[in-house]
Amino acid sequence: MARWEPGAPERLQQAALELFASRGFEQTTATDIAQSVGLTERTFFRHFSDKREVLFGGQEVVVQAFLDGVESAPPGTSPIEIVASALRSATAVFPDDRRSTSRLRQSVIDRNPALRERERHKLASIATAVADALRARGVGEVAATLAAESGVTVFGLAFAQWIREGEQRSLTEIAAAVLRELLALTGEAAASLGSP
Amino acid sequence: MARWEPGAPERLQQAALELFASRGFEQTTATDIAQSVGLTERTFFRHFSDKREVLFGGQEVVVQAFLDGVESAPPGTSPIEIVASALRSATAVFPDDRRSTSRLRQSVIDRNPALRERERHKLASIATAVADALRARGVGEVAATLAAESGVTVFGLAFAQWIREGEQRSLTEIAAAVLRELLALTGEAAASLGSP
Repeated sequence: MARWEPGAPERLQQAALELFASRGFEQTTATDIAQSVGLTERTFFRHFSDKREVLFGGQEVVVQAFLDGVESAPPGTSPIEIVASALRSATAVFPDDRRSTSRLRQSVIDRNPALRERERHKLASIATAVADALRARGVGEVAATLAAESGVTVFGLAFAQWIREGEQRSLTEIAAAVLRELLALTGEAAASLGSP
Repeated sequence: MARWEPGAPERLQQAALELFASRGFEQTTATDIAQSVGLTERTFFRHFSDKREVLFGGQEVVVQAFLDGVESAPPGTSPIEIVASALRSATAVFPDDRRSTSRLRQSVIDRNPALRERERHKLASIATAVADALRARGVGEVAATLAAESGVTVFGLAFAQWIREGEQRSLTEIAAAVLRELLALTGEAAASLGSP
């Protein structure tokens, strides 16, 4: 029965995105997706536990990339520099040939409040995982959360910029620029508000 | 019919928190809450549209306080200093006599995933409102989001610290300290990562 379908997950993912984008997420069933590329519903569920997984299935890879970036920073690296390393690692998961798929995926998420909620939850989980990894490296409680949340905010903003029509820079370049903007912003304020 | 009940909303809120904390949020009905302070379900629904509103009803006040703080910063103030002003304004909504109620409320939220989700959504809405207000003051697109998200992260961390057992400092003091920690963290990194 379980015939091997070469490239089935990728074909299902691409078909799902196109159907979600044209018909709407709620109006598209797993069967619709499978049939549109000549596969069965059974094949769909062999690869994805549900319809949402087509959109959020790659989450562990992104989380792991963030954590690998935290891990690979040499001892003695400051919390924000560790986050910079995590951002370089996580953004490398999205090379430019994923840009148009990412753009389509985001347009589907942005139009559905439940999917936006789920995305917010996923980003919050990344921040929690990064903060835990920072604390495991000896970064203080509050500093770890601040650094991790900043990293996820930078990632989110960079991602939104990366998928804009006409944007040419890589996600890695954009994230580095957004992080520099954050540092410039806070640096400007540190002088007048004072550091501890 | 609609007898005026002096202090009814406050009594209902306090009773609700105690019941949510002892029995659990899901296990407590609006009728339970009303009856526990000798009021009717009808009175409950005159003051709150649903059970969750008892927990999240004050949201507009907090958002408005953030926006008032943005508004009251003098022209030419840097984005992070505007956020510092917003934090002073928002934290003033929580004087120390609200600390024990806030602690009880948070313990209810922390034990219920749906309530945690709603809280995350509320915080995200505050960040969006603050970012919009910053943009209306001429702060750039990316800088506005970075500054607003940082402000909300600082608020959340300060709030969690404020309701810890034994904490004596005011929420305003804690938020100022957390913001200084963020500035110190980023200042440390700015030197090695470089500003644009």
